[in-house]
Amino acid sequence: MKVGDRHYRTIWLNEDGRSVDVIDQRWLPHEFRVVTLKTLDDVAVAIRDMWIRGAPLIGVTAAYGVAIAMLSDASDEALDAVWEVLHETRPTAINLRWALDEMRTFLRKVPVSDRAAAAYKKAGEIAEEDIQLNRSIGANGLKVIREIAARKKPGEPVNILTHCNAGWLATVDYGTATAPIYMAVEDGIKVHVYVDETRPRNQGAQLTAWEMNGHGVPHTLIVDNAGGHLMQHGDVDMVIVGTDRTTANGDVCNKIGTYLKALAAKDNNVPFYVALPSPTIDWTVHDGVREIPIEERNSDEVTFVQGRNGDGSISTVRVSPEGSPAANPAFDVTPARLITGLITERGIAKASPEGLKDMFPERS
Amino acid sequence: MKVGDRHYRTIWLNEDGRSVDVIDQRWLPHEFRVVTLKTLDDVAVAIRDMWIRGAPLIGVTAAYGVAIAMLSDASDEALDAVWEVLHETRPTAINLRWALDEMRTFLRKVPVSDRAAAAYKKAGEIAEEDIQLNRSIGANGLKVIREIAARKKPGEPVNILTHCNAGWLATVDYGTATAPIYMAVEDGIKVHVYVDETRPRNQGAQLTAWEMNGHGVPHTLIVDNAGGHLMQHGDVDMVIVGTDRTTANGDVCNKIGTYLKALAAKDNNVPFYVALPSPTIDWTVHDGVREIPIEERNSDEVTFVQGRNGDGSISTVRVSPEGSPAANPAFDVTPARLITGLITERGIAKASPEGLKDMFPERS
Repeated sequence: MKVGDRHYRTIWLNEDGRSVDVIDQRWLPHEFRVVTLKTLDDVAVAIRDMWIRGAPLIGVTAAYGVAIAMLSDASDEALDAVWEVLHETRPTAINLRWALDEMRTFLRKVPVSDRAAAAYKKAGEIAEEDIQLNRSIGANGLKVIREIAARKKPGEPVNILTHCNAGWLATVDYGTATAPIYMAVEDGIKVHVYVDETRPRNQGAQLTAWEMNGHGVPHTLIVDNAGGHLMQHGDVDMVIVGTDRTTANGDVCNKIGTYLKALAAKDNNVPFYVALPSPTIDWTVHDGVREIPIEERNSDEVTFVQGRNGDGSISTVRVSPEGSPAANPAFDVTPARLITGLITERGIAKASPEGLKDMFPERS
Repeated sequence: MKVGDRHYRTIWLNEDGRSVDVIDQRWLPHEFRVVTLKTLDDVAVAIRDMWIRGAPLIGVTAAYGVAIAMLSDASDEALDAVWEVLHETRPTAINLRWALDEMRTFLRKVPVSDRAAAAYKKAGEIAEEDIQLNRSIGANGLKVIREIAARKKPGEPVNILTHCNAGWLATVDYGTATAPIYMAVEDGIKVHVYVDETRPRNQGAQLTAWEMNGHGVPHTLIVDNAGGHLMQHGDVDMVIVGTDRTTANGDVCNKIGTYLKALAAKDNNVPFYVALPSPTIDWTVHDGVREIPIEERNSDEVTFVQGRNGDGSISTVRVSPEGSPAANPAFDVTPARLITGLITERGIAKASPEGLKDMFPERS
């Protein structure tokens, strides 16, 4: 999507045909920086230390990481080792495993001498597929927004609340939760987005608000605590969020705090949608709360906050007292019973085993 | 309570018998500063700009503000004018109105020439009464903690989640939600407190964590998004929060985000208690969501965060992009149906019109 006057994707292959460039998201919204990933180690660090983030983008970046590794060693052993190294970087995001499995399964069938070239081609295809998936999700979600818009008084916007960043920055382009929003704007539907700050890493405030700004989408930043109050007062027409992993029964693992918003939506009869490309579905898991391991991240993310000083420099300040420990679970699970619908590339599925099986019969 | 080796209250009358000192809470946990309030304007600014905060402490500070004003003009007109000036500083906190009403009603019956002295005496009594109320709340809440402790395995702590700061810093001493916790610690019961950060002003991270540190209460700081996840996994045995205003039907208006935690508690069968001195009850309001005006505070509280730099200096950094507006509702309302019990100075009332009437029959 647009950054200034230029169209960017979040990741692209350089002219050397070997290294990839990514938008280094750690400095947004304050600085727009692009960083080049040349080695497997670069890719692993970029994923683990969240230079890039978002389940779909993690998957695509890992795919390119496999390709980069194949340049130096394309043996079966190397392929397995790369799979392990990259899989360890972020344990929760299912797209990571999906992309690594796709790459390995495909490359095993390719002669070792051809693997590097084949890997780059395959990674490129996964990137293109992500964009197509998001466009389809956008078209399906647009129908929901259009229906709500039809019930609003003339001139009143459709108020959409979103949590974290499931925007184009979390994918290769368009985003998942934001794709319906961008398409609604293109379609001339009046929308207004409530952007959850999304502590501890503030991806809502730093990334989603930045995206909305860039595209001129009317929006209001709120703290994570505020959504329930807004819903109680009829200020939210629908919620759309992304997901890092969706279970076969329709539970949704997404950024910590999503569950709280789903509870508030349910309590106030606000429709709660999750936008997801099907690679996000983990068909092996049937109870999200019990089975999905939740990544516990560094407590510094809680005790420190990064921001921009008055002079434009970026610094990190401590917000809590020395000596107070912090816990930092990065995701939570929203049970299927709280979800109105799963917006997939094929259509909107019920968040249930049957709903998902009906939409993806080849997986059942 | 203790600050280092010395016992402090949050507010005290100076030896001059005229000015009052308060802990300037804007710099906690990074710096401990005391500021002297000499004029009505000082008091109004201290309340409005949140040098002091917390419903009970606001009430006591306002009472001293009336006393200070009486020194220069103790007429009926001045009394009414002071009531107005101070009442406007924070519209949501009912204790403010309660304290101002107490002072005015009492002083009207006193000859003008005796009013200043009488006002200081009365303000002192309100401060002492606050401490006694909190001790009684602590004793009543302690029973709940003791019951839960009896069901835990040996050595396991009672895990208590709290939101914002309803600690001693929010009162004259002891706190409301924290009084049962401090008493449990004194009683030798093993407790562990999950402290919600409480954006946007971070009173949990800045004040409650600081209090817990000061008293050696085991605690863990979490972002506001994390409580639901912890409750899903059985990591929270009870929630205790304070309140800025409780309605006659048992709805509770408290710091923004309280409602979300109450929903999560309900969804996971975690007991959700609200600790409150009876001056916090607004007997004239019967539907909190519809009737209580919610203070909309400056959006800078959302877009900027204050913290300490590595060199010890305190600075404020911008966390969101320029051009993204923010909304900042400061409170929300938790409906009575989500509340297990209201811990008052007289005992634990059901959060219902009958529950409150039975506990305070003189008010019905």
